[in-house]
Amino acid sequence: MSKKPRILVVNDDGITAPGIKCLIEVMKEIGEVTVVAPDGPQSGMGHAITIGKPLRLDKINLYEGVDMYKCSGTPVDCVKLAVNKIFKGNKPDLCVSGINHGLNNSINVIYSGTMSAAVEGAIENIPSIGFSLDDFTWEADFSHCRKYVKDICLQTLKNSLPQGVLLNVNFPNNSKPLAGIKICRQANAKWAEEFDERVDPHKRNYYWLTGVFQNHDKGEDSDVWALEHHYVSVVPVQFDMTAHHAISNLNGWNFNV
Amino acid sequence: MSKKPRILVVNDDGITAPGIKCLIEVMKEIGEVTVVAPDGPQSGMGHAITIGKPLRLDKINLYEGVDMYKCSGTPVDCVKLAVNKIFKGNKPDLCVSGINHGLNNSINVIYSGTMSAAVEGAIENIPSIGFSLDDFTWEADFSHCRKYVKDICLQTLKNSLPQGVLLNVNFPNNSKPLAGIKICRQANAKWAEEFDERVDPHKRNYYWLTGVFQNHDKGEDSDVWALEHHYVSVVPVQFDMTAHHAISNLNGWNFNV
Repeated sequence: MSKKPRILVVNDDGITAPGIKCLIEVMKEIGEVTVVAPDGPQSGMGHAITIGKPLRLDKINLYEGVDMYKCSGTPVDCVKLAVNKIFKGNKPDLCVSGINHGLNNSINVIYSGTMSAAVEGAIENIPSIGFSLDDFTWEADFSHCRKYVKDICLQTLKNSLPQGVLLNVNFPNNSKPLAGIKICRQANAKWAEEFDERVDPHKRNYYWLTGVFQNHDKGEDSDVWALEHHYVSVVPVQFDMTAHHAISNLNGWNFNV
Repeated sequence: MSKKPRILVVNDDGITAPGIKCLIEVMKEIGEVTVVAPDGPQSGMGHAITIGKPLRLDKINLYEGVDMYKCSGTPVDCVKLAVNKIFKGNKPDLCVSGINHGLNNSINVIYSGTMSAAVEGAIENIPSIGFSLDDFTWEADFSHCRKYVKDICLQTLKNSLPQGVLLNVNFPNNSKPLAGIKICRQANAKWAEEFDERVDPHKRNYYWLTGVFQNHDKGEDSDVWALEHHYVSVVPVQFDMTAHHAISNLNGWNFNV
């Protein structure tokens, strides 16, 4: 690539998060950086879009040499606004999301605003990658991720991704040296919900969503396994949600209408 | 099945929508009905969950012979609260979502609160179906859907769905007689965004998300094709988003870290 690649950076933890600061710094080493990120936390927003109220998009100046905008909407709104109003259809060469404070492996891909922003990038036919770290604290240390983030982005720009495919990259925390990169599939795991039930001062009940992550997958080719063994997990993700293998089964059903 | 099936009904248009009323009426012909639905519109919420604020769940009594609750959260929150706080782990035999005012075919499966509620049901290992109609108006006529909804639910209870698979059912509107049921795949189509840019009374810009649906798929086995030919489209959907076909490609990349 002769010209510097143009890179869109987005996240779901909000534009002031340390995770996006790390991602911006690494992307500045690779290309021309544009940031469009939520003006506040948007974790767990999944693929939500804002249709019932208007959106704000305001230019701000947090980091030098970077074109930055904060957006009142969801992570997916950020990507849509970036493509339409900032890049004006001249799409960026890469869309990166994160680095998320907290893992987005396994089923979390579906709840995560970080990953949904990357999915939206892929729907827009932009090579897209979501990055997440196994540390949800605001003080999380992202330093051990930097060289992997850079290399995965450079390899993506060089090799290009198959049509309709993006990457979900998760990092172990910095408690042990990383074992390398492992290409994986999404583990068969889920959250067992537990609602913390409380009573407000007006005697009405309310609930906080909490839960316990349960891995039901014994495979050694899953992202959960890779992270447990201190690998950087890379899962190729697609937005064709068709269960193609089930079509012949369903064609055997005898509908009565 | 000797006992009446226990059925969870949810939606994203809110508990007072005509679409969920139709679905409740049909489900009452089949089994014991429990409704947990948002207290207001939650269209386009995708797979969002509520983690930054508490949730409310209040019993209400809109329709006779039905256990009903309104929830302050997203469609996915409704399913989680239903499973955890109402069914208390003794999961229902069926989870149905809708009938949505507006199509959820093709890529809309990923933006739709209606479909995400059904996906969450499937993650909870409950046979789950989302229903949607090609008419987004509040006054939409759902009458032509009733016998299909009933039959698809009965067939699902009888045949059971493959592990990790749910159904995305879309109905043409009532302008022509229905041609029957067609098992399909998700069409390769997307929204071309168009933001309606306006200026508020305080001279600040704001944006309304709008868009044009663009079908890039010539196949005659897609849901878009089926609906255009007045079939009821049934797409099996999975929540394993791994692009399994891309794993070998990625294993060929030469990472430098």
